[in-house]
Amino acid sequence: MRDFLPQDKLKRERLISTVVDAYISRGFQQIETPVLEDLSRLTSGQGGDNEKLVFKVQKRGEEFTQALEQGDELADLGLRFDLTVPLTRFYASNHSKLPRVFKAIQTGPVFRAERPQKGRYRQFIQCDIDIIGDDSILAELELLSASLSALEAIGVKDATIRVNHRELLRSNIEALGIPASDALAAMITIDKLDKIGIEGVAKELAEKFGDQVGNSAHSWLSSIDAQDIPAVLAPIWAGLGSQAKSLRFDPTLVRGMGYYTGTIFEIEHPGSGSSIGGGGRYDGMVGKWLGTDAPAVGISLGIERIVDLIPDSPKEGDLVVLVLEPNTQQIALELQQQLIATGAQVRLEMRPKNLKALLEQLAENGYGRFAIVSDATTELAQLDFKQIG
Amino acid sequence: MRDFLPQDKLKRERLISTVVDAYISRGFQQIETPVLEDLSRLTSGQGGDNEKLVFKVQKRGEEFTQALEQGDELADLGLRFDLTVPLTRFYASNHSKLPRVFKAIQTGPVFRAERPQKGRYRQFIQCDIDIIGDDSILAELELLSASLSALEAIGVKDATIRVNHRELLRSNIEALGIPASDALAAMITIDKLDKIGIEGVAKELAEKFGDQVGNSAHSWLSSIDAQDIPAVLAPIWAGLGSQAKSLRFDPTLVRGMGYYTGTIFEIEHPGSGSSIGGGGRYDGMVGKWLGTDAPAVGISLGIERIVDLIPDSPKEGDLVVLVLEPNTQQIALELQQQLIATGAQVRLEMRPKNLKALLEQLAENGYGRFAIVSDATTELAQLDFKQIG
Repeated sequence: MRDFLPQDKLKRERLISTVVDAYISRGFQQIETPVLEDLSRLTSGQGGDNEKLVFKVQKRGEEFTQALEQGDELADLGLRFDLTVPLTRFYASNHSKLPRVFKAIQTGPVFRAERPQKGRYRQFIQCDIDIIGDDSILAELELLSASLSALEAIGVKDATIRVNHRELLRSNIEALGIPASDALAAMITIDKLDKIGIEGVAKELAEKFGDQVGNSAHSWLSSIDAQDIPAVLAPIWAGLGSQAKSLRFDPTLVRGMGYYTGTIFEIEHPGSGSSIGGGGRYDGMVGKWLGTDAPAVGISLGIERIVDLIPDSPKEGDLVVLVLEPNTQQIALELQQQLIATGAQVRLEMRPKNLKALLEQLAENGYGRFAIVSDATTELAQLDFKQIG
Repeated sequence: MRDFLPQDKLKRERLISTVVDAYISRGFQQIETPVLEDLSRLTSGQGGDNEKLVFKVQKRGEEFTQALEQGDELADLGLRFDLTVPLTRFYASNHSKLPRVFKAIQTGPVFRAERPQKGRYRQFIQCDIDIIGDDSILAELELLSASLSALEAIGVKDATIRVNHRELLRSNIEALGIPASDALAAMITIDKLDKIGIEGVAKELAEKFGDQVGNSAHSWLSSIDAQDIPAVLAPIWAGLGSQAKSLRFDPTLVRGMGYYTGTIFEIEHPGSGSSIGGGGRYDGMVGKWLGTDAPAVGISLGIERIVDLIPDSPKEGDLVVLVLEPNTQQIALELQQQLIATGAQVRLEMRPKNLKALLEQLAENGYGRFAIVSDATTELAQLDFKQIG
């Protein structure tokens, strides 16, 4: 877990607010759910491997003592590991107050009890959009278009979204001669393609399912043509128009989570070693809590990785320092107020022994000019502004 | 813990960003610390009663099993109960990279394991500013001026800040004939003044410390004159100029936390039954972690209470709905992009069976006009916009 210093925090805040603004301009609405959820919900089988990474929060008071004595589960709450499980609970609780087609934005911290390593954190920000209640391809189009526009707005222009469809993947796996009941095991192997290559995947499938499957897999993987977009996905390319140039059909794309039922996406960028976002359609999951059918599709941007792809935020605007001689606080506060009204950012500093050192430090923080407030100062016009540095 | 629906979330986001912008314009800088801190730090005696309300996070894996077997503490992390304890740790870790006088803004969720009741939540937002490294009265002036300006910016104009000084309180208590070692017990009683009145406080002090103390307390409390500002606080009134009209000297103000060493503040508003913010000087606390002296003063706004004082956010701007006939997704996405470029917020909807019901619902959400996109539409000029409702 990390502290964010002012310069980092500024960059992150600007990034997130630009992304959120891009989504809001497309009619998405922000919501917020609590950081803590019932532990039972976080471990109900929706979250795949992430469920093993839940930080568990202990019961309190009597309940804790009792659970300890009786050898019961000692925790009753957990820190959310993603924003999708909370969204499905939110929708089940609140759907009567929401539009028929609900277009949600969520930004917030999620938590995973992993060993910290480069690019993986125990607390990190996710930024998700989801559309619930629309089973048409328009939902996919809106998510893809909005994500590409948001990435462009923050200056990430070379992103590619790999697209596949879970049913297509299943039928490809079946065509290799693998029984439907083993499809998941096969997916786990195919998911390693980036790391172990065609030979590696073919070999592992041969070990699992026999040489014939291995050979079929080798010729399938060798013959893949990203240009040969299948009928089930063609409307996505057609609908996205000029933005479709950022899509790439990838029949080997798996995505980890078990709950996907249709299209799946993964966003990559040449500047990042791993994906910078992803998502897909999960039509069964909301209905499970709600009791009635509710088609849903979502996409998540990996803010932690994206933040590394863009340059530091330049300081913007008129950053001013007023240096106060003794007993000038009242007039300095008044002048500060007047300068702020002109659009400036105004920092007050008591005059230190070493003014030069102070000004040098402030110049590094983007401050452009300063003036001394003396006990003879009574109005703005008297200030003698000088450039810093 | 609560879900926030779009309308509530919008209001909260606008409120917080207006407050943060007011602080940024005064040279404060945003930082962020993790939601989880080491449990030992959260229970080291800095947080007063709040330390009893920490949500504890269980150890994981082997460490948990071992702790369970050996009857050790089962938790190693905790959810922060305020933003001040994390700030002192942040400053101790990062002070070499920060300005000599550090002016921090923090906004984020904090957690307290309380029984939920009206106006008290287990997860809530705090918005704090703190100045570390300035022992002059300028720090107090900046915090008070910035807070009053931020409240004004969000439309809360009748706030009053009660001001006292811990040393003044101590000497007043001593003057009642209470020994210094019992000052804390006396403060707990004086803190109830709002609830039990002068008679009640005098009675309770008489019970604790004898009738003579009770009588002295009664005459002290009856003779309090808020206009009679003591010398130690007078520079605050002088320095704040016209904003000083929002201050009120209150020699009975206590503030719960044990770590305050100088001025203390509490913000109240006629529309709120309890305080909407508060803070004070805590010169000893940062130095404790840092090893060297670091004067500090902070003020926190209670966003949850303030949000109830202001009206719902009106929808702003040009909110547009494009209703799509079948097979118009591509042109609709293009027109959406063009409309967004003109500053509109544009929501896409497949044409439903009941268009009227959809439009009524969208009107409630602030949408002002709509147009149908048909398969003959090729450009923006062809759209026939109609007012909704």
